[in-house]
Amino acid sequence: MNDTIDVRWAVAKDMPRVLELITELAVYEKEEDQVENTVAQLVEDGFGPNPTFECIVAEKEGQVIGFAIFYTSYSTWKGNCLYLEDLLVTEQYRRFGVGKLLFDFVLNLAKSRGAKRMEWQVLDWNEPAINFYKKYNADLDPTWINGKLFL
Amino acid sequence: MNDTIDVRWAVAKDMPRVLELITELAVYEKEEDQVENTVAQLVEDGFGPNPTFECIVAEKEGQVIGFAIFYTSYSTWKGNCLYLEDLLVTEQYRRFGVGKLLFDFVLNLAKSRGAKRMEWQVLDWNEPAINFYKKYNADLDPTWINGKLFL
Repeated sequence: MNDTIDVRWAVAKDMPRVLELITELAVYEKEEDQVENTVAQLVEDGFGPNPTFECIVAEKEGQVIGFAIFYTSYSTWKGNCLYLEDLLVTEQYRRFGVGKLLFDFVLNLAKSRGAKRMEWQVLDWNEPAINFYKKYNADLDPTWINGKLFL
Repeated sequence: MNDTIDVRWAVAKDMPRVLELITELAVYEKEEDQVENTVAQLVEDGFGPNPTFECIVAEKEGQVIGFAIFYTSYSTWKGNCLYLEDLLVTEQYRRFGVGKLLFDFVLNLAKSRGAKRMEWQVLDWNEPAINFYKKYNADLDPTWINGKLFL
């Protein structure tokens, strides 16, 4: 199926569909009520004068079936890194390698930019994702607790 | 002691001292061999044409005794966030509230910029830090495993 999938940079008019996919991922993560983002805010944050994220999409016959959102992060130990915030393939198109297309696009971009590492988070019960990342020999470290203050 | 401490934005010529403090924190975290950053790279990454982090320092009588490094991150659920990458007060000046001065500076900055949340990580055995964050009613969530690929 992969040969019919295009991975391309998202544009502002993809954001309504991307917000649907963000919400699909939040539902999968049992956190649907956490999604407060809007199409207008995504357009401003990703395509306004000071973009704070980058977005790619996977497209099949003109329909966006997956996406990844990422940004440049910083490690005081290493230097510039790439943080993969979200990656999702909509349910009916899973298990065909679309996620790998998206992940590899981001990974190759990180390498080409000279990023020192690529980072992300995964829920400890999300076995399909954990098994996917293990194929890359990723370091999966449960020692660091995440702290957050909502402002 | 706080009234003799200034918190100010770092400049490029603070980076040799900041790298010492980054290393002091890595030693505390038992990860000293992970520090590959250099003064030249910190100057480029923080003060070059495309800065990827911001840095503040705590100063006492002209000596830098603490620092914080942070950057703008993105939550697909919330929008723009502020990620606190490192915060350290050098050992002899701990327990005088200098860490709180630095943390509050970053927190107020995040609020003033309209960030949706402030985020950081803490090692699960770092009780003094965890107790400090609990005073802010911070959400400390061990459910998300951190993934990393070194490039």
